[in-house]
Amino acid sequence: MTPAFDNLQKQLKQLPGLGHRSAERIALNLIVERPERLAALLAALQAAAASVKRCPRCGNLAEGGLCEVCADPKRLPGVVCVVEQVPDLVAVERSGAFRGTYHVLHGKLSPIAGVGPEHLNLKALFARIEAGEVTELILALANDVEGEATCHYIGERVPAGKVKTSRIGFGLPSGGGVTYADATTLKSALEGRRNYS
Amino acid sequence: MTPAFDNLQKQLKQLPGLGHRSAERIALNLIVERPERLAALLAALQAAAASVKRCPRCGNLAEGGLCEVCADPKRLPGVVCVVEQVPDLVAVERSGAFRGTYHVLHGKLSPIAGVGPEHLNLKALFARIEAGEVTELILALANDVEGEATCHYIGERVPAGKVKTSRIGFGLPSGGGVTYADATTLKSALEGRRNYS
Repeated sequence: MTPAFDNLQKQLKQLPGLGHRSAERIALNLIVERPERLAALLAALQAAAASVKRCPRCGNLAEGGLCEVCADPKRLPGVVCVVEQVPDLVAVERSGAFRGTYHVLHGKLSPIAGVGPEHLNLKALFARIEAGEVTELILALANDVEGEATCHYIGERVPAGKVKTSRIGFGLPSGGGVTYADATTLKSALEGRRNYS
Repeated sequence: MTPAFDNLQKQLKQLPGLGHRSAERIALNLIVERPERLAALLAALQAAAASVKRCPRCGNLAEGGLCEVCADPKRLPGVVCVVEQVPDLVAVERSGAFRGTYHVLHGKLSPIAGVGPEHLNLKALFARIEAGEVTELILALANDVEGEATCHYIGERVPAGKVKTSRIGFGLPSGGGVTYADATTLKSALEGRRNYS
């Protein structure tokens, strides 16, 4: 192909989920097959880059002020679900099982990757807790070493009597059978067993 | 999410191969997780849109003048492989089985979709033939009604004695067994049988 085309393909290939062939297919679509669409895509990229910011309260995506969740008067502001990333918040919202608000850390503690508490959106979380905004904290972090470390760090710094703190349940996913579950999942599921009567 | 983010996701979803989830994932990656990459992608899109044109001879991608294939002195200029789209050319190049040049029609005849001869890059093809540039024409168009119609249209207009014209073979794909082949493929394969001794 041509140098400018190859460079575009290289840039597209760095996006999550796109390989060599899918990047080529998208580049050809944008440059050759449907060039009339390119202007709209460029405008959307530039507009999103310019206007989408972090919510000053929770760290979610927002445009000019609080995010949609924080600004919604029907949400319970005192119940705060702590997530690693914005996609995690989207996943919890999709479940429809949560009517509180969120706090997005934008990462998790990882000494190996050099991610310390100062790199995460933790200061704002502790400020919310100290201001008395938070009555319940639900830690919806991953079931891995970094998630565990991050929960531990937060748990140690939350005033015990005032804020009810929990971590989401681990175990078999919906539709998942015991046969195909991996050892760590089964360990979590056994540890997280509940009374059944 | 936010309106600007939703609009970006909608634009990304229109690209080939991207669904709702993959568009969301890419938008989050570009806007939240790796905003530092966005400038390079925007520059690559704009540069490709500005500099990538059609080769004036064959219709392939080119930057300022003939495309890489037409400009390559090692290619046989008289042997011309006619393809529908640039991705078809890329696929034939990838096979490594062809050392001639190409002619990209940018579509195929389709009365139902309202695509007539005037919408395709046919004028330039007939000009190449009339100028005596072409000694052999290989029609690498799809094995469908529109491909058939386009081959018929071109075949009728090629001077019979001067240009050797062929259509690429149809039949079982590499690695494909008879059991799983569809009826039309088997029909093509039977019609295209070759002597075997």
